[in-house]
Parts: sequence; structure tokens; C-alpha cells
Amino acid sequence: MNEKDLKKILNGVRKGSMSDIQALEALKTLPFEDLGFANIDHHRSIRKGFPEVIYGKGKTTEQIIKIMENMSSKKCPVLATRIDKNKAPKIKKTFPKAKYHPASGALTLTTGKIENKGCGTILIVSAGTSDIPVAEEAIVTAEIMGNHVEHVYDVGVAGIHRLMNQKDKIRQANVIVVVAGMEGALPSVVGGLVSRPVIAVPTSTGYGASFGGIAALLGMLNSCSAGVSVVNIDNGFGAGYMASLINRKL
Amino acid sequence: MNEKDLKKILNGVRKGSMSDIQALEALKTLPFEDLGFANIDHHRSIRKGFPEVIYGKGKTTEQIIKIMENMSSKKCPVLATRIDKNKAPKIKKTFPKAKYHPASGALTLTTGKIENKGCGTILIVSAGTSDIPVAEEAIVTAEIMGNHVEHVYDVGVAGIHRLMNQKDKIRQANVIVVVAGMEGALPSVVGGLVSRPVIAVPTSTGYGASFGGIAALLGMLNSCSAGVSVVNIDNGFGAGYMASLINRKL
Amino acid sequence: MNEKDLKKILNGVRKGSMSDIQALEALKTLPFEDLGFANIDHHRSIRKGFPEVIYGKGKTTEQIIKIMENMSSKKCPVLATRIDKNKAPKIKKTFPKAKYHPASGALTLTTGKIENKGCGTILIVSAGTSDIPVAEEAIVTAEIMGNHVEHVYDVGVAGIHRLMNQKDKIRQANVIVVVAGMEGALPSVVGGLVSRPVIAVPTSTGYGASFGGIAALLGMLNSCSAGVSVVNIDNGFGAGYMASLINRKL
Amino acid sequence: MNEKDLKKILNGVRKGSMSDIQALEALKTLPFEDLGFANIDHHRSIRKGFPEVIYGKGKTTEQIIKIMENMSSKKCPVLATRIDKNKAPKIKKTFPKAKYHPASGALTLTTGKIENKGCGTILIVSAGTSDIPVAEEAIVTAEIMGNHVEHVYDVGVAGIHRLMNQKDKIRQANVIVVVAGMEGALPSVVGGLVSRPVIAVPTSTGYGASFGGIAALLGMLNSCSAGVSVVNIDNGFGAGYMASLINRKL
Amino acid sequence: MNEKDLKKILNGVRKGSMSDIQALEALKTLPFEDLGFANIDHHRSIRKGFPEVIYGKGKTTEQIIKIMENMSSKKCPVLATRIDKNKAPKIKKTFPKAKYHPASGALTLTTGKIENKGCGTILIVSAGTSDIPVAEEAIVTAEIMGNHVEHVYDVGVAGIHRLMNQKDKIRQANVIVVVAGMEGALPSVVGGLVSRPVIAVPTSTGYGASFGGIAALLGMLNSCSAGVSVVNIDNGFGAGYMASLINRKL
Amino acid sequence: MNEKDLKKILNGVRKGSMSDIQALEALKTLPFEDLGFANIDHHRSIRKGFPEVIYGKGKTTEQIIKIMENMSSKKCPVLATRIDKNKAPKIKKTFPKAKYHPASGALTLTTGKIENKGCGTILIVSAGTSDIPVAEEAIVTAEIMGNHVEHVYDVGVAGIHRLMNQKDKIRQANVIVVVAGMEGALPSVVGGLVSRPVIAVPTSTGYGASFGGIAALLGMLNSCSAGVSVVNIDNGFGAGYMASLINRKL
Amino acid sequence: MNEKDLKKILNGVRKGSMSDIQALEALKTLPFEDLGFANIDHHRSIRKGFPEVIYGKGKTTEQIIKIMENMSSKKCPVLATRIDKNKAPKIKKTFPKAKYHPASGALTLTTGKIENKGCGTILIVSAGTSDIPVAEEAIVTAEIMGNHVEHVYDVGVAGIHRLMNQKDKIRQANVIVVVAGMEGALPSVVGGLVSRPVIAVPTSTGYGASFGGIAALLGMLNSCSAGVSVVNIDNGFGAGYMASLINRKL
Amino acid sequence: MNEKDLKKILNGVRKGSMSDIQALEALKTLPFEDLGFANIDHHRSIRKGFPEVIYGKGKTTEQIIKIMENMSSKKCPVLATRIDKNKAPKIKKTFPKAKYHPASGALTLTTGKIENKGCGTILIVSAGTSDIPVAEEAIVTAEIMGNHVEHVYDVGVAGIHRLMNQKDKIRQANVIVVVAGMEGALPSVVGGLVSRPVIAVPTSTGYGASFGGIAALLGMLNSCSAGVSVVNIDNGFGAGYMASLINRKL
Repeated sequence: MNEKDLKKILNGVRKGSMSDIQALEALKTLPFEDLGFANIDHHRSIRKGFPEVIYGKGKTTEQIIKIMENMSSKKCPVLATRIDKNKAPKIKKTFPKAKYHPASGALTLTTGKIENKGCGTILIVSAGTSDIPVAEEAIVTAEIMGNHVEHVYDVGVAGIHRLMNQKDKIRQANVIVVVAGMEGALPSVVGGLVSRPVIAVPTSTGYGASFGGIAALLGMLNSCSAGVSVVNIDNGFGAGYMASLINRKL
Repeated sequence: MNEKDLKKILNGVRKGSMSDIQALEALKTLPFEDLGFANIDHHRSIRKGFPEVIYGKGKTTEQIIKIMENMSSKKCPVLATRIDKNKAPKIKKTFPKAKYHPASGALTLTTGKIENKGCGTILIVSAGTSDIPVAEEAIVTAEIMGNHVEHVYDVGVAGIHRLMNQKDKIRQANVIVVVAGMEGALPSVVGGLVSRPVIAVPTSTGYGASFGGIAALLGMLNSCSAGVSVVNIDNGFGAGYMASLINRKL
Repeated sequence: MNEKDLKKILNGVRKGSMSDIQALEALKTLPFEDLGFANIDHHRSIRKGFPEVIYGKGKTTEQIIKIMENMSSKKCPVLATRIDKNKAPKIKKTFPKAKYHPASGALTLTTGKIENKGCGTILIVSAGTSDIPVAEEAIVTAEIMGNHVEHVYDVGVAGIHRLMNQKDKIRQANVIVVVAGMEGALPSVVGGLVSRPVIAVPTSTGYGASFGGIAALLGMLNSCSAGVSVVNIDNGFGAGYMASLINRKL
Repeated sequence: MNEKDLKKILNGVRKGSMSDIQALEALKTLPFEDLGFANIDHHRSIRKGFPEVIYGKGKTTEQIIKIMENMSSKKCPVLATRIDKNKAPKIKKTFPKAKYHPASGALTLTTGKIENKGCGTILIVSAGTSDIPVAEEAIVTAEIMGNHVEHVYDVGVAGIHRLMNQKDKIRQANVIVVVAGMEGALPSVVGGLVSRPVIAVPTSTGYGASFGGIAALLGMLNSCSAGVSVVNIDNGFGAGYMASLINRKL
Repeated sequence: MNEKDLKKILNGVRKGSMSDIQALEALKTLPFEDLGFANIDHHRSIRKGFPEVIYGKGKTTEQIIKIMENMSSKKCPVLATRIDKNKAPKIKKTFPKAKYHPASGALTLTTGKIENKGCGTILIVSAGTSDIPVAEEAIVTAEIMGNHVEHVYDVGVAGIHRLMNQKDKIRQANVIVVVAGMEGALPSVVGGLVSRPVIAVPTSTGYGASFGGIAALLGMLNSCSAGVSVVNIDNGFGAGYMASLINRKL
Repeated sequence: MNEKDLKKILNGVRKGSMSDIQALEALKTLPFEDLGFANIDHHRSIRKGFPEVIYGKGKTTEQIIKIMENMSSKKCPVLATRIDKNKAPKIKKTFPKAKYHPASGALTLTTGKIENKGCGTILIVSAGTSDIPVAEEAIVTAEIMGNHVEHVYDVGVAGIHRLMNQKDKIRQANVIVVVAGMEGALPSVVGGLVSRPVIAVPTSTGYGASFGGIAALLGMLNSCSAGVSVVNIDNGFGAGYMASLINRKL
Repeated sequence: MNEKDLKKILNGVRKGSMSDIQALEALKTLPFEDLGFANIDHHRSIRKGFPEVIYGKGKTTEQIIKIMENMSSKKCPVLATRIDKNKAPKIKKTFPKAKYHPASGALTLTTGKIENKGCGTILIVSAGTSDIPVAEEAIVTAEIMGNHVEHVYDVGVAGIHRLMNQKDKIRQANVIVVVAGMEGALPSVVGGLVSRPVIAVPTSTGYGASFGGIAALLGMLNSCSAGVSVVNIDNGFGAGYMASLINRKL
Repeated sequence: MNEKDLKKILNGVRKGSMSDIQALEALKTLPFEDLGFANIDHHRSIRKGFPEVIYGKGKTTEQIIKIMENMSSKKCPVLATRIDKNKAPKIKKTFPKAKYHPASGALTLTTGKIENKGCGTILIVSAGTSDIPVAEEAIVTAEIMGNHVEHVYDVGVAGIHRLMNQKDKIRQANVIVVVAGMEGALPSVVGGLVSRPVIAVPTSTGYGASFGGIAALLGMLNSCSAGVSVVNIDNGFGAGYMASLINRKL
């Protein structure tokens, strides 16, 4: 049911062709979402401005292509995450303009330049080289959502001077995403240097008692720095998305 | 060492009273923080605009009063969290203008009106009545940090219509803090309704397999809604602080 | 020992060819189940009306076929779960009337129409597309046990309006099985909408801190909605079976 | 907004005193729950027929009394769970007809005889003497919700003959709630004896590696008997509620 | 150092060619195990009467053969556990008299009949068909250690009558090994039926919240039956070994 | 129903006053346990020879006294475990011959000398002084069950020579119970020294990552010595009981 | 058996009053520890140079005094840890020279100046004020073991400049003990600054997902800095002891 | 910025070509590490004397070769850990002098003899044969860092005499690394024998409740021997590194 349908009911009421009881009944069951309520408008605005996201894991190449066809026909920028490198070539055959990001497995398809909707810079900071795939997922996500994104890699806390060398860059960012595995200490240190929000992403990097990222996750949740919040293990997309919401011009 | 000291070195070099080697030696060991570098300035600005925070747990009444005396002498707004209700009267005797918030155990001391530094409203949403102490800690924190704060209580997902009734309030907020225990589902539902950042706070509310908030924590980390990040269990202060950073006028 | 054997003892006692002591000894050791006691009758009735279930995991194709031959010779409807897609063709060669359900890996073999033994409709609700295999296992189980089954897919809590659009369908069901991974919040929301029992099935969908379904499991156990009970992770069969028992005409 | 308000809008439309745009705007924001939609009706019916439930833990005696006053004024049967034995006398002073159940800490207040709304008997089975408080909470819940409830206590699996002696009672029940701590094996054995749904309630009974009920919880989730579903640790209320929904006459 | 060496010292002391101090020094550092002390004798007796055990996992076929050659040259009965089925043929080529037990992956090599060293029968009871590999490992271990072993399979607690049918066999055993996965309830029931020791073996059978055998392990540790002790998950060898020690004629 | 009742049925059949169908019906429902079948005999023998055990935790002094009165009237030796030291004096007033064991909280009441039913000695070995309460519970249990019990205390693995000094005592025992907290290493070392069964009891001794006995429990389950099985944390009673079953003359 | 006994045997052998077989038998069973072998000597040296340690938790004041009397009579320096502040006055009455350290609950009793046995300085670094009790336990332990100890408090990673200001002190230490709760990140940062061994001590400081020190423990075990090893949660004594062994002059 | 750059600034100040303000600005942002400050010197000294370490897991053969080329051009000794045996041949083609250690997967490349920088011997002790890869990683690490390393293998606590035979070797070592899986008891026993520091390495050896090394890890953290600290599961490199720091001549 849409606005047209609703007007029809109102018209019926006005003209007397519809009783109050009939109108009430019709209104009771109307799926309010289809009325163009804020919820839906809002969702539309999300869909317009922000990319549709396809979680690639467990979907076949055919399924992914089909969803992308549907989206691209609506001129939506497309972001697909966790796309196996074996699936990428076939997808790119159908969408020659699609771009595959091999480190993160993200795949993007955009038409024209992405409009900058952010207040400032989103900075992605990562601790070790094996955290880069997750960092890249955050970067790709934040970029397609219309942000200026920079990154600083390989500044783990074991060599704190490497991080200190990047202090200026870190302090000029509007939102900072910090990606780290192992003990997950980096967000605490970064959080202590800045007055802007820090999104911490634990990664499954490490072995033994890192327990697939639990050590880093707990470390970040218990950060002694205020102004740090946490997303799921390896969830670069979630961090990039959250950072974009924070950075977005109101 | 401060700017004055540094200038003295430079002067010495200029005048020749200090050799290059002596100057190098002095500069190598200079504690850069004491120079008034950005780091420190920045910290100062934080301390001015944002309240000093005293984590009250495990501190004696005397210790708390001593820290508060030091702070209030510097005209800092003071926020003390987790203050036992037994300690509050004695503190209030020393600081008659201090305000104790019994639900959360927070205690605040401010002079004059707090300047509004936020872009919009911070909304605190909580699921059940037992989540209110944590919600209140977030409110007190966000208010003393210069934000307009509103709240919506008792809108757990078991009665989804209660939440739906507050849709407008939720959508008008600039940042939303969602406090929930038990299964921690509320941030996912709220996150699906809005396009603004959601800070999720798991609480230790519940029994049995809630494991002191672990169930809620995991639920929130695994939220199927993008745009949700998480702070530690019962960490209302952390959520209020994070929300303030996000809401802050640049 | 069966009824015939028991009568023989009684006859022996009556005729005096068996002493009390001999009879007592014989009766003491009689395996009561073989007498056709309620327990067994009951089991038989289960076996007649309800399908034999073969848990396919870890069984060879030959073993599965052998059990199916035994069962189908007794006119039992057969349900085999977790059948590898590689094993299905060979089984279907032996049982051309068998039906393989590829999403869940369930395989059914029935003769004639299944009699409807249910009071109402069993509705299977699932949150995300990756929950569908588990949902399908529940559907197949409930159908072969003689129920009218409907389903509503892809109504996760991140887009609560999709669920709201299905409110009528949900409220008309007699039993509802809710399948969800990640934070497992859906059963709480559904449980808040209905006055009928909800069986919650956590799935191993998700990554990172979903811990193979633990997050969803804990979420469901801590549901703030009354009228929700939980089965094991990914246990679509168990949920379908439980729903069938609840729905069964007395 | 209620039906009266809605009719006013329709009237305004009919009379021309309200434009389509105005009507649309009003309807968009109408809180659908207040219209007496099924959701609410349904909730009302729940509230009428089924008791209001007050979770007593963490509420003051005054708060509990206030809620009870509100409810009893509406002639609702009242169920309050987890009421400290120290609070009971004061509550009983205000409500002399209230009944306190000391084993479970439940407190009930009903007027007149509770109408039987169940199809059959709900049987509460418990393993050990220390499981009785949880069992009693289930009993009280199921009784106030209009069921005939029986119970069988102290039939743990370590003395399987005690359980076997109660086979008839168990098989005649329409729904069975099984309460057990330690290894939580009882629901599996009971589930194997009957063809009716079994609700398993793990209790925190035990020590050492029982981990406050986790051992029992896991045991029940992994039950090798089909037709068993599980509620939270010590959640006798949840089990009684679920059993009532299952047993309810349609 | 062996007895010969020791006698040499004693001789030297007696003859005076060795001073007390020299003798003391020599004796202080003597590795007592090489003297044929009880410890070692005892170990030898174990090795003679009880099989050498080779844990096959992670050893190459060549390593296994080499150890077996060493052992069989000493007329030791050989037990090798967890031998991959791919390695078995090659081993059997070298030791044509070796016997491979495919279900458990155990491999045995004995010469002549194994002497019966047990007081009574060891009974291996298992719950489901997927527990059989572990049960078989226990059987093979107990048999090569000189015991009369019987077994009862597929008597899980979901069909308690199957177990009851085997009561006599169970009660006549001197030691009982109970192997079960999922909820691990069987040892509690068996333990309640007998007055002989029960060794419980949790298996990794199950899925979801069975957590690779943790559910069964916890269930068994919390058994409400006295007279039950537990070995590691899937440790059929350990259970068979323990049962042999218990059953051994003194 | 007892033997007398059964004979009545047989008589009725013989005399013709009871039809086959009536007899069958009566026999079907006979609670076999009440016939004095092996199960019950066995239980009786347990009850005669082995003590009734009262788990004192959570029982009132009155309840404990009542159960003890019932038992002692039947001349059963009584073992009550985990009796609070505050309850002991009152119990001893009623039963002046009862003996309270303050370290473990066990309380025993026996009449006459306990007959020795064991094959050999049960040795209780404990690691640290804080493990003694659990060790004592094992001793008291094994003694009242008719065993000769010895003990060796304070022989933790950090001073391995202390253990070595007790080698002879350890090797002469028929069954060994090893009680240890912290890392739980002692059973592995003891198990390597003997050819008799070792029952390992983890204790909740320790702090930090001992997690209330989990570290010790895991250590014992993973013992590299064969011939070790494990009971629940702090379960001295269970270990003493298991050891008694093993040691019992057949 | 001591050296005297051994000489008697050797004498017997020499004189012929003891046969070789008799001597062998005697020697086989000699408890080597009592001979004053290296093991024992070594232990003695530990006892002389290093303090006896009394773990005070769970010991009565009387027990503690008794052990201290025994020790002090042998001129041993005494270290007692985890002494309740209520017990301290009574102990000090008996040993007026004993010193109680209230923050850590350690109590020491020494006679004369402690000889410095260390190569360099041991530095104790702690993150937050609530880590100080654990840090102090490490200090007291290291001091009584004969080390020069310094400390740096309140240099958590959230304000990295505070740590940087202490770089020189940190780099001049020979061994560094780092005490931290919450996310436990400090040892990684310190480990990256120095080339000397770092002993990390997680503390139970924190709340929510710090899980009583698990978060810090995991963080430290997963430290990205090499040269960091970890002791148990809150184990200041263990860290001080380990640091002393490392620092000890060879 | 390096010393040369810094001198240029000083020169500018002296000559007047640079104002104080300009100099201050330049100095404020100078990356202090590039000045050759202690931190960096220290790092350099580490890099010179101690090997660069490449963590091979997840790096391609090409990446590893590239890093090695860079390092070897600077005459650094190279240590690469966790190198897949498939990658080794290709690397050795480029670096014919590289040595591959197949058990641990370590690969080393050194020029000339490694200078001995240690005070004494580092002894690597391992419990079972499956712990050898981790032990070897520790050996290779300690050797390339300039230590004399010895090892004792296969001395698990189940045969304590094997360990006792090596007592002298153990006591003569300056630092001891103890590698053990399963229950991880060996470090406690070794720690009780010596007065030198023990580094404990838990391994993922074992099955079932060993939980990939958690059991061993917890066992070691709870060691009842003082003077034991722990590194991450399977972290042979970390243990070898820590041992080297301890053993290093000051």
C-alpha cells in the first residue's frame, strides 16, 4: 500500500463509498512501511547515498551477479564483501567496471565519482601487516560511503616510536579506526592521543591464546582510554560503516 | 622542560655558550610532553572542556575528596563515577554544591552552566528498568560534557510497539546510546531504524546463562545492523563519553 | 519375551508345571519392553505416525541405504538428515521416490499422502538467507510428521518493518519456529508479538564473536520474552520435531 | 491515539475540514499500537487471562506494592517472582489475600477461582531436592495461568527405578517440565518415555564443574531425545509460562 | 650405572681402593633408576605384562614400524592407537601378524594367547553408533592388557528400555566403561544400577553446543551417581587402561 | 508391589480367579523395583554395607537430624558431608556418638566397628595444605565404607623429593586418591610411579587463572600418565566412594 | 637416612658384616634426599639466601605465628603474603620487628640488613592506582630476596607521554616487572622500549569483560613484543621472585 | 630527520637564519626516533646483535625473500619462523647458505660464527616427542641470538625418573626453557629442582580437554613452583628470545 492507495481510502471515506468501519479495517492492516513513512524514506536515503552491501561468504557467483545486476540497474553503488578471489574474475566479466580489492576480498561497482559526504578525514590505523585485509575492508567501505580516507599501517605498540611519528596525522583525523590483533593494545594508545572517536576492530591475527581474536576483543573492550568503542572480530566493514555515520555531514 | 627552557638552549647555541654536542644531548632527553606540544595542549583542552573523571570504586572517601579539591580549585567540572551511597553524604558535606545521582552512583560538581558543545541531541535508550543505573551514568557523563541529552526507558524488544511509539524521538537524535541486558537485542532493532551512530552498552542484568552480561555483549558485537559499536559491560560512562566525542561540534 | 511367552508362564503356573519360585525368577528378568507395554506401544505409535529419523552425518551411503530399506519395508515414512549432496544420487538410485532437499541436506521417503495430524499451522521464521538450511530442515521435519507448515524468510531485526509486514501470518500460526544466527534477537521480537509457543533455533551463522552460534544461543536463552524455549545450535530437526509435538492433535 | 481519534480524522476528511495532506500526516505518525490493533488486543487478552508478572529481584518492597496495587485494581491475577522472604510480610500486610510460596520466593494474588484454560495436565518433574525451588516457580506460574498442574519430585537418573515407578503419571501429562541440575540428564530420559513436549530447565544446583548450571544447560541442549527444548538456568517461570502456552486450549 | 657398577663400588670400599668420601660421591650422583630399583622393576613389569603403547597421531609410518620392531623383538605385545587407515597396510606388510581395528584405528601385535590377568569381566557400554570408535579403542586396550571384555552398544538414555534389557549383563561386570557423547547422561544411569566402578568416557560426538565433547565431559563430571570417574574426551585407551588396572588380579 | 503381591497374582491365575488378561495387565504395570529384583537388592546391599550419604549443603539442621534419625533407626552407618560447623553442635546434641570432622565438614555416625571390606589399602595423597579438607572428605568416606585408609600430605610437585621419600607407601597402596589444586600435576607424577588405579581430585585451591579449580581439572584430564581418572572439583566424597568400589573384595 | 647411616653401610660392607645383596637392598631404598645431595643442598641455599614464604590466605593467625617462630629461630628472613589486615596486629605483637605492608598485605621479618645479591636494579612499573597492591607485593618480594628495587606508578598506556617521561629509568633497569589490569597493554609498550626481560603481571582490576583479569592475561600472553613472559593474575609475589632469579649474581 | 638535520637547525639558529619560533616549530614535530635517541640506538643494537625475525605464516615466498635480501644486505643474521616446508626450497635457492630446520619450520641465515653473548647455558627441556617442534624453535632462536644451548627431550612427568637422571644438566643451566603440552606439569617439577629462572611454553599437543593448549597454559600459570613464567601457546620463539635476554652478559 502506498500514498495513492491511502488517498483512495480517504476519498472513499469522503465520498461515502467507504464506511468508517471499512476504513478502520483497511488502515489497521496497512503495512505502514509502504506508506513512505520516515522509516522507509530513511531507508531509501540510505540506499541512495550509501552502498548496498552484499555479504559474499556462502553465496554463489551466480547469486552475487544477480543481486549486483538488480542493484546496478538502480544506479546504486555496490559494495560486496568477502568475495573469494576465485569468484572475482567471473564477476568482473559481467561487470567490467567492477573493482576487486584482493587484500580484503571486497568488490566495488560505482558509476561516476562518489560525492564526499564527510565532515573530515577518516583515518585507518593498523598494527601489523596481517591486519591489513581488515583495514582495507574498512577503507573500501568508508570510501564508497563518500569519505576521504587515509591510512597508517604497521604502527604496533611494540615500537611505539613508529606510532609517535604519525601523531600529527592521527590528530588531524575526524574519526579513527584502529585495527589490531594479538593483544589489541593499539586503540588504547591511540585513544589516549586524540579527542576524536576511535572505533576499534579486533582481528583474528595471532596464535595460541589469541583464541581467534578473543584476546584482542577483550583488550579493546577493557581499554583504559575513554572514547573507544568496539566492533566484531575482523569486522572491517562494520568499522568503516560506523566511522562513516560519525563523519557524515548532518 | 618547557618552552622557556628550550629557548634557553637555542639561545646558548646562538651565543656559542653551548656546543652542538651539548645541545644535542639536552634535546635528546627532553621530555617532549613538557614542551607544550600538541599532545599536551590537546590534553589540556580536554581537561578544560571535558570533565576530570574519578573512578570511585576502591577509593576511600578521603581520597575522592582530595582529588576533588585539587580539581575544583582549577575550576574543572568534576565527574566521579561508582560512588558508594555511603560515601556520598560525607563528600557532599565538603562540597555542598556537588550533586549525587543515586541510581548510577555518579557524583558531579560544576560551577556555572555547562556550555553546550554538541551538534545535536544524544538519546539514551534502555531496555528494562534494571538497565536504568547504567543509562543514567551515560546521561550524567554526556550532560557534564556539554550535550543536550534525552532518554527513552523501558522499550525492550519483547514489546516492540513501545519502541515503535518512540520512533520519531529516536530518529531525531544525533547519536544514540542503547543500554540493554539479557539478550542485548535492542541495539540491532534501533540500529535498523536510524542512520546515525549507535553505541551499545551491554549490562549485567539477567541471570543464568546471561553470565553477568556476556550474552548481551556477544549479542551486540554480532548485531546484524551496521552502524553499531560496543563498549564494555555496564560501562555507561564509556558510552556517554564516546557519544559526546561523536556529537561534539568540530 | 513377548505376550505369548508370558502366557506360557501363567499357564505353567496354573497347570502346576511351574513353581512359584520358578515363575518369580522368570518374571524378574523379563524385559518388560518386549511385552508390548505402554512404553513400547508408544514407541510404535511414534514410529508409525512419526518418521524414523536417520542422522546421516558419519554414516556411509551403504549404511543409510540399508537402514532405509529396513524402514521402507515397514511402510514407515523415512526422514534422513544431514545427507551429503554426494551421497544423495546413489540413494535416489535405490529409492527413486526419495526426495532430496538440497538446502538442508534432508532426504525424505514417503508413500502416499501424509495424514495431517496437527491442530494448526507451524510457521518457520528465519532471519537471514544463511539461516535457510536450518529453517528448511525444520520444515521438512514438521511436514513429514503431518503438519501444515508455512514459512517467512529474511525478516531479521535490523529491518523490523519487514517482520511487521508479516504480523498477521505470525499471529495466525499455532506454533512458531524462529531460526536466527548472529545476535539471535528475532525470537524475542516474535515472542513479544504472539501468544503461542516459540521454538528458537540458534544457527552458526556469523563470524568473529558469534563463536559458531554461541552468541545466538545465549541471546535466545536470555530472551526477555516469555514463551520462548531453545534447541541446540543448527538443530532444525529438533525444532521441527518439538513444534510437531506441540501442534499435534491430542 | 485510539479509535475515537481515528474516526475524528476520517470525519474531518469526509467533512472537508481536513485536507488529504493533513490526514496523511496524521496517519503517518499514528502510534498504531494505540488503535486497538491485533497486537494490542492480543496483549490485552494476554494480560486479562494470563497474570501480570513482576520480576522481584532488585525492586524495593514499595515498588512491588505499588505495581501490585495498580494491577489488582484492574482485577488482574498477579504473579511476582523472586520475592525475598524479608519483603513478603510487608507485602502481605498490604494484600492480606496474597499468598507467598517460600520455596520459590513466588508471591501470588488472585481473586476468585482461576479458570482452567488448559487441554490437559502439566507435569513438573524434578531431579533432586535442591531443584524444588525452581520446580515450584514453574508450578505457581502454570497454575495462575489456568492449568491443572501435578508434580513428581526426587526422581533423578541415579536411581532410574524411582522414575520408572512414575511412568504412568509421566505418560498421561500433556506437557512436561523437567527441572534438573548437575549433569541435567533427566530430560533426555523423560523425553525418551513420552510423545509429548518436554521443557527442560537447568538449575544452578551442583558444585565444581557444574559451573552454576552450565553443565546441566549443555546437557539439555545436547539431549539425544527429540522433543526437548530448553529455557534459561533456574528459569522456572519461563518453563511454566511456555508449558502454559503449549497446554492452552485453542 | 647398573648393579654391576654398584658392586664395583662396594668392592672398592671393601678392598680399601675407594675411600668413604669417594664412595659417597659416587653414590650421591648415581642415577637410581638404572640400578634396577623398584621403580624400574615395576616399570619393567608393566612393560612385560601390559602392552607398550604407541600414540600413532603425528608419527610417520616409518617411525611406527621402527618402534614396533624394537618392541616385538622383546616379545612385548604391541598396542598402537590412532593409526591412520592409510598407514595400516604398510605396517601390516612388515608385521603380517599385526591386526588393524578399523573403527578405532587401533593396531595390535601379539604373540601367542594373551594371559587373562583380570578378576572379572570388563563391560564396555556405549550410547550411540558414533561412539563406537572410542568404545572399540577401550575394548582393544583392555583385551591386550589381559582382560575378558564384553560390550553393549547403542543403549542411549533416550530409549531407557534398551539399557534396562541389558541390566543383568551390566550388573555382572566387574568394571564398566561407559562411552557417550551429546549430553553424556549414560554413566549416571549405569552408575545408579551397579555397585562396581564406572569409568566414563565423553566423546566428541554431537554438534552445536556439544562443543566437541565439553557438554558430555561436564555432564559426566557432575554425575549424580557416586562411583563414576572420568577420563579425557575420546580417550578410549585411557578408559580401557584404567579399567584394566582396576580389574587386575592382585 | 512386593513378592507377596506377585505370588497373589500367580495364585489367582492358578486358581482361575484371575484371567490371563487381568494378570497380564497387573504384571505390565508392576513397579519392578518393588519386587526385590537385583536392582533393589543391590541397592539394599549398598545401603547396608555402604553408608547413607547426606549432602549437607542447603539442608537445615532439622532436616539433617530427621534424616539421620530415620537412618540410624535402621542401624545404617551415616555419612553426612559439607556440614557447616555451626550446625554440628546441635546435631551432636541429638546424636552424642556422632563424630564431626572439622576440616572437611563431614559428620559420621556408626555403631560398632566398621567391617573391613577392602582388598588392600587406600592411600590419599594431597599436594598442599589447603587441599587437606578435600582429602579428609575422601578419607572419611573410604573409612566408613570399610577400608583401611592411609594418607600422605604436602607432597606437591614443586618439591619432588618429598614425594619420592614416600615412594614405598605409594607403591604398596591398592588404590590411590590424589588431591591437588593449582596446576593439578601431582596425579600425573604419582600415576607414573605405580601400577594401581589413581583417582584424581582437582581442588578449587589457587587464585587468578586457577579459575576455581578448572586449571587443575584440565590438568588431570590431560594427564600424560595412563591409569588416572578424574572426579569433580573438590569432590573428595566422590573420590573416596570410587576408591572404595575399586578396593572392595568381590 | 643420612651420611652417617650411609657410612655405616659402607663400613659393614668393608668389614664383611654386610653382604653385597644386603647393601644393595639398603641402598635401593635410601631416600636420596636425606643424604644431603645437591637437591637438598640447593634447597638449603634457597632457604638461606631467599626468604621462606608463607601464603597467608586461609591460614589462622596462630598457624602463621607458629611457622614464623620456627623460621625466625633459624635466622631466616620471613616473607608472608596475603595477610589480612585484621591478623597483622596480633602477629606484630609476637614479632615486634615484623613489618606489615598494608597495600599488599605482605608481612616481612628480617634481622640485620639484607645483602644485595642482584646484578642491577629491578623496576616495578604499574598502570593504574588499583594495580599498586600487586606491584607492592612484587617490590616486597624482590627486596627481601636481596635486590635494589625501584618503581614507576600510574603510567598506563592511555597517557603514553607519562610512560615516555620515564624512559630513562625504564631503560636503566636490569629486569622490569610490569603490572597492569584492564586490557593489559603496558607490557607490550614497555617491552618495545627495552632490551632487558619483562615480567608481566595481569591484575584483576577492571569490570565487565575484564573477567577478573582474563582480558589482561590474554593481552599479555599475546604481546607483540618479544622478551615478555607472564605470571598468574595478581601474582605479584611470583613476578618479584622470578625477577630476583633473573637479577641474581651468578 | 637525523643528527645532520638537527645540526642544520642549530646552525640556522646560531647564524640567525632561523628564528626561535621557526626552530621551536621544527623541533616540536621532529620525529625523535630519527635523532638517534636511546630508543633507536637501543633498537639498532638489538638489530645488530640479535637477529631480525620474520614471522613466516601468511607471507608469500616472494615477500620472505625480499625481506631477507634487505636484511642480509645489512649483514644482519636472519631468523624466519613458521616457514612452510614447501617454501623452504625456493628460499634456499636464493640464499644457498640459509639453513632450514624442518621440525620447527625455522630458517636461519648467518654469516660467520655467531658471537657468544650469554652468561651460561640455556637448557631446553621438553616433555613429549610432539613438543619437539616448539622446543626446536626455542633452540634455533636462542642459538642465533648468541647463546650456548643444550636440550633434554622426552622427560615427561609420567616417568619422573627420566627427568631425575638429568638433574645435573638441569641444575647447571643458567636459564631453562620447559616445553610441555597436555597437563603442562613439567615446569612445576623442573622449577622445584633449580634456583634459576624457568620459562614455560605450553604446546597445543594433546586432544579433547587439552583445548589446543589451554590446559597446559593454565597449568603453567598456576605452577606451584616460584620462578616460573609463561609465554604463549606454541611460542618457542618467544621463550628462546626471553631466555636470551635473561642469559645475556650485561
